[in-house]
Amino acid sequence: MNKKLSNADFQPLDSGVVPRFAGLPTFMRLSIARPEEVDIALVGIPFDGGTTNRTGARHGPREVRSQSSLVRRVHHVTGLSPFDKVKVGDCGDAPINPLDLMATLDSITSFYAEIHKARARPLTAGGDHLISLPILRALATDGPVGLIQFDAHSDTYDSFFGSRFNHGTPFRRAIEEGLIDPKRFIQIGIRGAISDAANYDFAREAGVRIVFIEEFAERGPKSVMKEARELVGSGPTYVTFDIDALDPCFAPGTGTPEIGGITTREAQSMVRMLDGIDIIGADMVEVSPPLDPTGATALAGATMMFELLCVMANSPGFKS
Amino acid sequence: MNKKLSNADFQPLDSGVVPRFAGLPTFMRLSIARPEEVDIALVGIPFDGGTTNRTGARHGPREVRSQSSLVRRVHHVTGLSPFDKVKVGDCGDAPINPLDLMATLDSITSFYAEIHKARARPLTAGGDHLISLPILRALATDGPVGLIQFDAHSDTYDSFFGSRFNHGTPFRRAIEEGLIDPKRFIQIGIRGAISDAANYDFAREAGVRIVFIEEFAERGPKSVMKEARELVGSGPTYVTFDIDALDPCFAPGTGTPEIGGITTREAQSMVRMLDGIDIIGADMVEVSPPLDPTGATALAGATMMFELLCVMANSPGFKS
Amino acid sequence: MNKKLSNADFQPLDSGVVPRFAGLPTFMRLSIARPEEVDIALVGIPFDGGTTNRTGARHGPREVRSQSSLVRRVHHVTGLSPFDKVKVGDCGDAPINPLDLMATLDSITSFYAEIHKARARPLTAGGDHLISLPILRALATDGPVGLIQFDAHSDTYDSFFGSRFNHGTPFRRAIEEGLIDPKRFIQIGIRGAISDAANYDFAREAGVRIVFIEEFAERGPKSVMKEARELVGSGPTYVTFDIDALDPCFAPGTGTPEIGGITTREAQSMVRMLDGIDIIGADMVEVSPPLDPTGATALAGATMMFELLCVMANSPGFKS
Amino acid sequence: MNKKLSNADFQPLDSGVVPRFAGLPTFMRLSIARPEEVDIALVGIPFDGGTTNRTGARHGPREVRSQSSLVRRVHHVTGLSPFDKVKVGDCGDAPINPLDLMATLDSITSFYAEIHKARARPLTAGGDHLISLPILRALATDGPVGLIQFDAHSDTYDSFFGSRFNHGTPFRRAIEEGLIDPKRFIQIGIRGAISDAANYDFAREAGVRIVFIEEFAERGPKSVMKEARELVGSGPTYVTFDIDALDPCFAPGTGTPEIGGITTREAQSMVRMLDGIDIIGADMVEVSPPLDPTGATALAGATMMFELLCVMANSPGFKS
Amino acid sequence: MNKKLSNADFQPLDSGVVPRFAGLPTFMRLSIARPEEVDIALVGIPFDGGTTNRTGARHGPREVRSQSSLVRRVHHVTGLSPFDKVKVGDCGDAPINPLDLMATLDSITSFYAEIHKARARPLTAGGDHLISLPILRALATDGPVGLIQFDAHSDTYDSFFGSRFNHGTPFRRAIEEGLIDPKRFIQIGIRGAISDAANYDFAREAGVRIVFIEEFAERGPKSVMKEARELVGSGPTYVTFDIDALDPCFAPGTGTPEIGGITTREAQSMVRMLDGIDIIGADMVEVSPPLDPTGATALAGATMMFELLCVMANSPGFKS
Amino acid sequence: MNKKLSNADFQPLDSGVVPRFAGLPTFMRLSIARPEEVDIALVGIPFDGGTTNRTGARHGPREVRSQSSLVRRVHHVTGLSPFDKVKVGDCGDAPINPLDLMATLDSITSFYAEIHKARARPLTAGGDHLISLPILRALATDGPVGLIQFDAHSDTYDSFFGSRFNHGTPFRRAIEEGLIDPKRFIQIGIRGAISDAANYDFAREAGVRIVFIEEFAERGPKSVMKEARELVGSGPTYVTFDIDALDPCFAPGTGTPEIGGITTREAQSMVRMLDGIDIIGADMVEVSPPLDPTGATALAGATMMFELLCVMANSPGFKS
Repeated sequence: MNKKLSNADFQPLDSGVVPRFAGLPTFMRLSIARPEEVDIALVGIPFDGGTTNRTGARHGPREVRSQSSLVRRVHHVTGLSPFDKVKVGDCGDAPINPLDLMATLDSITSFYAEIHKARARPLTAGGDHLISLPILRALATDGPVGLIQFDAHSDTYDSFFGSRFNHGTPFRRAIEEGLIDPKRFIQIGIRGAISDAANYDFAREAGVRIVFIEEFAERGPKSVMKEARELVGSGPTYVTFDIDALDPCFAPGTGTPEIGGITTREAQSMVRMLDGIDIIGADMVEVSPPLDPTGATALAGATMMFELLCVMANSPGFKS
Repeated sequence: MNKKLSNADFQPLDSGVVPRFAGLPTFMRLSIARPEEVDIALVGIPFDGGTTNRTGARHGPREVRSQSSLVRRVHHVTGLSPFDKVKVGDCGDAPINPLDLMATLDSITSFYAEIHKARARPLTAGGDHLISLPILRALATDGPVGLIQFDAHSDTYDSFFGSRFNHGTPFRRAIEEGLIDPKRFIQIGIRGAISDAANYDFAREAGVRIVFIEEFAERGPKSVMKEARELVGSGPTYVTFDIDALDPCFAPGTGTPEIGGITTREAQSMVRMLDGIDIIGADMVEVSPPLDPTGATALAGATMMFELLCVMANSPGFKS
Repeated sequence: MNKKLSNADFQPLDSGVVPRFAGLPTFMRLSIARPEEVDIALVGIPFDGGTTNRTGARHGPREVRSQSSLVRRVHHVTGLSPFDKVKVGDCGDAPINPLDLMATLDSITSFYAEIHKARARPLTAGGDHLISLPILRALATDGPVGLIQFDAHSDTYDSFFGSRFNHGTPFRRAIEEGLIDPKRFIQIGIRGAISDAANYDFAREAGVRIVFIEEFAERGPKSVMKEARELVGSGPTYVTFDIDALDPCFAPGTGTPEIGGITTREAQSMVRMLDGIDIIGADMVEVSPPLDPTGATALAGATMMFELLCVMANSPGFKS
Repeated sequence: MNKKLSNADFQPLDSGVVPRFAGLPTFMRLSIARPEEVDIALVGIPFDGGTTNRTGARHGPREVRSQSSLVRRVHHVTGLSPFDKVKVGDCGDAPINPLDLMATLDSITSFYAEIHKARARPLTAGGDHLISLPILRALATDGPVGLIQFDAHSDTYDSFFGSRFNHGTPFRRAIEEGLIDPKRFIQIGIRGAISDAANYDFAREAGVRIVFIEEFAERGPKSVMKEARELVGSGPTYVTFDIDALDPCFAPGTGTPEIGGITTREAQSMVRMLDGIDIIGADMVEVSPPLDPTGATALAGATMMFELLCVMANSPGFKS
Repeated sequence: MNKKLSNADFQPLDSGVVPRFAGLPTFMRLSIARPEEVDIALVGIPFDGGTTNRTGARHGPREVRSQSSLVRRVHHVTGLSPFDKVKVGDCGDAPINPLDLMATLDSITSFYAEIHKARARPLTAGGDHLISLPILRALATDGPVGLIQFDAHSDTYDSFFGSRFNHGTPFRRAIEEGLIDPKRFIQIGIRGAISDAANYDFAREAGVRIVFIEEFAERGPKSVMKEARELVGSGPTYVTFDIDALDPCFAPGTGTPEIGGITTREAQSMVRMLDGIDIIGADMVEVSPPLDPTGATALAGATMMFELLCVMANSPGFKS
Repeated sequence: MNKKLSNADFQPLDSGVVPRFAGLPTFMRLSIARPEEVDIALVGIPFDGGTTNRTGARHGPREVRSQSSLVRRVHHVTGLSPFDKVKVGDCGDAPINPLDLMATLDSITSFYAEIHKARARPLTAGGDHLISLPILRALATDGPVGLIQFDAHSDTYDSFFGSRFNHGTPFRRAIEEGLIDPKRFIQIGIRGAISDAANYDFAREAGVRIVFIEEFAERGPKSVMKEARELVGSGPTYVTFDIDALDPCFAPGTGTPEIGGITTREAQSMVRMLDGIDIIGADMVEVSPPLDPTGATALAGATMMFELLCVMANSPGFKS
């Protein structure tokens, strides 16, 4: 198979014919595909080896896929279907080793390098937040990229338990490794007590723009996203959505919930305002099914992935 | 017994004497009554045979009754008790057949025809949303009525799985059957991706006013409800409250949750602004207890029924 | 593809390389296959339209597949792997219509007729117990077959709610339609209060052997299964395992639990004693995930399917 | 109304007409009745004020009633229906005061004195185990009665927290007050570590027969129940079934679970062997719904109540 | 030990060395301390004997401590750590008697009198709301204090079930006993239907300022808290935070949830505006773990306690 | 402090004075102690870094401690209290690093070397089963020890995912390292399908006695334990109890449940038959609280620890 297949080959199952509870739970009921067949590759990374407290995000991809059966085809605001605009498929899970963190970082990077080489853009369901690092290593091959991060936590710590690679450190590593341009890096929704008053010093000194929840609440989504768009500009940009950016009432099933968070209405509104940015990839991380008895968090994550997919499908990088 | 009984005969059990966890869980701890004894008949319809994906709403009436033990007597904003204003009783469940959808539509209509004949106004706990159709068949005997629908979904599809009668189609059928005046029909809170770009075409062409969540969020409850009141005017109006109008954080226990929904504060505010409309009946549907481990959804549903009851009790149709 | 593929092509994913939580949840981590490629076809029937009380079994196939990721390759008692003996694949879900019971019976039969024609033997995850009827219609093309039923309920009622096709009636219909030979039909584990003293009269009069739980507890698995083997003899035999045969402590997630049931140890022991019987098909039904918060019932069901698979793989019908 | 009503007036709702999930959840879907109308009065006591650790049994009657919708009419072993033999009705909840333990003991006794006076025999759903005491005060008006207790705990402590009336003390109080004949008192299933080596001294010295779980496991239900029958003889006997007699795998939803308990199969077997004893009343206590997420405990409790009902209906005291 | 110990002796465990899931769950991972060693004493009161409906708050302190392992050291808005400013320790649980309400009121008062005498200020996790009364009895030794109450309910009833001491009455008792100055008493977030139209009469007549949720929603946190600060002025003030002030979506695990409540964002914002008030003590009550399957309510409660701790640490009463 | 403290200093809190839900949840409500103060050291190891599939056992120690509040003082069969026989205390958690498996193995060994040096015998709550290895490294300083393992899985694999140190390999490593005498090593309860027919070859060739569940079910606890006692003889013996030895109905909250397991009654019976063996240490592992919504598994684990404690307290090594 190759990219000569038409969009008709990459449509979700019709829920008026095959009920949503039937069939294998691929992402958004799409076909299983190889990266070279698609424009946007939906991928899972079932890895939580970087988690410092409550694990479980390794089960995220499976449950997000399952809940994504509820996702439909056409965005109700724009009236457009991402599946008509670009080719989208479920490219499976990246290979990981639950007992070897460093080897896993490498195998993830290799997997995404293949996607990148195939000119597909990845939209990923984690896994814990450390997985953004090996993805960025595969994508930022032409120099540092911009980053828009929705999150409760900055994830720019230096280390925990003597380890430099965990879900509290990916973006410090990414800056150090030249994967992200800190001047084109904005964090939105940061909140919660911190371990140390110097917590945000690295990010601030590197030039990262941190929008704490208090500033966000004051200014609202529109004003903040206007700034975010200006900050990343027209260059290649990665988007990372940590589900704990959402308030725990919307996303209880995550390892490090922080009260006082973003509402889903606000989050949807913000992601829609990413339209037109050249999004080279995106991820949605930290859904932890063992902590999510009703599946609400996985459903919120799957829905946010659909919102991300819609703006990715409209990226200038796709000349469709 | 007959309507000569006084309001004192239709008061909730006193929770300072009989604790809320004691006694049979009738709606709001009211007496079991026959339609001809009351002004407002609380009814359950334990039927979810019209559900296309996740069932469970058949258990709604029982759990809503149980959680309604937490409901009190007097509205804290107006200071009035609906139980002092009109006679309210629990008239039991409509007869249904879990294995025969078409027969059930008829038995529901017959049951409500009796209520209508007894000049009681029904306030119903569903059941899936299809149940609004047989109720409307019983109530709209003098021509089409107005309809105010709080919902995440338009429910004006033509068919699913080749079936024209399911919980995605009741209001198209009701328009086709002349039960609803589409010009006096407003839908509030509609959202979520759709199966087809033409999804809302029928409703729009029929003249139904659709207030999507984005417009709602922009304008707020007051402005939207002002419009709703003007739209339905002083004619007979039915109110239907699908619990999935609420954001899933308030109502996780429902078959088709959509993130980004209405808050309970907004919903209460909107229902209160129905005061003065001639509400001939109302329902609250789609609470699905198997998906509601904490009972929060049933409690939200029961509380919204109390809010609906208060405005129904004040309807111009009651000359009390 | 065709049956020339070797067994090496139909092995479960290696859990020492791809962790059990990774990848798409096919049955037992097997390949997706077409009936003509395999000897034993694992199939799901996500249908619970025949349920008279608590629905949810429509979600059974998905959750059983997910929990079946925990199943391993080799039976620890016999040391044999069914996957080395015969070719086994996941043949997907039978097509169903959640809103049309009669059409669904037909579409299931058609689907299984294809499997039968391809000379594959089906091992099915339900769905409610009504699904055994359309399967038998497809398989019993050469005359009535034997039936071994593990169940809490006889499922030989005539009708409920005026309907002759529901999960309380499949085996009366199957006898009436000549699909089952009542003299080669044994029911094991039957228990629980009944609606009517004449409840078992039809089965008894037809010659069905009913082993109530009291007799089973008295005699033990060995004695009962000796009788069962003699009763069905060497002819073609279907096996149906209703998960509610198990005590609710092992299988809480089912619609009609009955206390005082069979233990999993007893059940495993009994299924192993089916070895050598010519099992032309089998099913495991009535797992209801919404009632199964820990997934324990789906895991028990998946493990029982593996036990059934092992004895099916050894069936005389396979001349391997 | 009076006892001239026939048994036909006291039959459970027909589940082939009104589904089990419909209608008000009275005990076993029976009519609401007054004591003077029935032979056996089903009663709830929603009180857990005697609980020393984990409360919740106050919610027991409501949830046991709800789960009892699954109970059917005819015992499958004997083929007899208790509802055909005697008149049985739901007589509601005894009045209690959640904030006043001593007043509650009195109000319960008064309520049961009325039942006793009406010559109905009570079958009660608790509530914590303290409730047996006020019931016995009402029933043992003609001298001490025999007692068969299924339980993990002896409940013959002297006091906790300085209080002589709590769920660890009812049977010491009952012996002291002359309500029970300690020589006709047998406890079955007792187990678990104890607070003090002298724990069972009072009971032993009073002559109570304690069958620890180890002895029970050794001898089996038949032998133990033979002894129990001989011990209580033909005199009036009360039966109390603490749900924690069952192993926690069958009854997780209780305040003081003890592993290593009785199976439901054993418990059903034992209760059936009570047949012929003159049971003047019985209770089933300590179901705690907040600790019972699947409702399995309440269902086990409801089913044990049906088993108790069947042997009560056959009591020599009823000359039917 | 004594107050000469330095702040370094009262720091939370370092979560980069000892993971949050390790070690004994003291409040905020602090040392166990005696009141005379600390400036602020964190205390639990595991008592819910004043609860009129759904109990469980007795388990609150244990679960709040457990979830408080997620709390960090430094407030992200102010950049200050309360643990550097004052000495804070876990002073254990107040002695209570689950079977004797009146004795418990006294033992709580005695325990807090010791804390007060040691010049430590208590920050308490309840327990039901009645516990505020015995605390106030210990603290208001120099005349009535001011009170800021965040709550869904006024808790100024006269009695329930004939009892004057329960979780619906503490603040009426406190006014009557001269512990609170009603002119310096403000209630924020009050809502929900009431039992009686005269419900708020006592509070109003006493001069208590009641800010209903509707007024709060209209004016917003800033305006309301400006008024609250002016109302209590510079005198000694107690703060009580009933977790049911929060909307049930944030705090489902509580006995008397009321929809339409305060968001955590609003609550955090309001508590921060208490800065500078002379807070002599505070409590956070009504977390009921049996009703809180995900622990979200206990986490919200623990986080609100951290917010309260930060403003208490800054109280003028501490001359640090 | 030192060992001159008397047993009176190491008694559980009196549950007739301090309720079980109050106070810090130390193991069995015991004092916090240092190894040199006690004869038996209760220890937690909150580590699950060796888990190949579903993690969560890192939270085991906290939840087992919490549920152990239900454990009482005196064994009801023997009438003896372990707390009167030897000194027992809660010695806290071993230090671990969630991000560094190899470092954790070493820090655990160091921690237990201190306990061993202090002549205390450890009774441990895991953590996953890998933790037995570093414990054995600390205890088997005088040559290989005997081992009695209750488990569903042999845990003698060579490696998973290329890693030789994980929860499937501890006992192969221990044999290779000369920590266990394979001739004095018995495994009881082994069951479930396996990955490879050669699965048990290493253990068998090394001389390990494997009692599969089928043999166990045939022979019963007495016969098997007679053999186990003879096999380990009078030499130093370690006991390891994997909670998944129990059937999932008793212990749902574990990462690798296998149906058809041991009952708690059987398990208690077997542990009691360890009496007189020189038990130098024991552990209970693999309780995974995120998979254990009711806490039943942690309670079963805590109770089994009490049973182990009782036989350890009677070990010949203690000359009390």
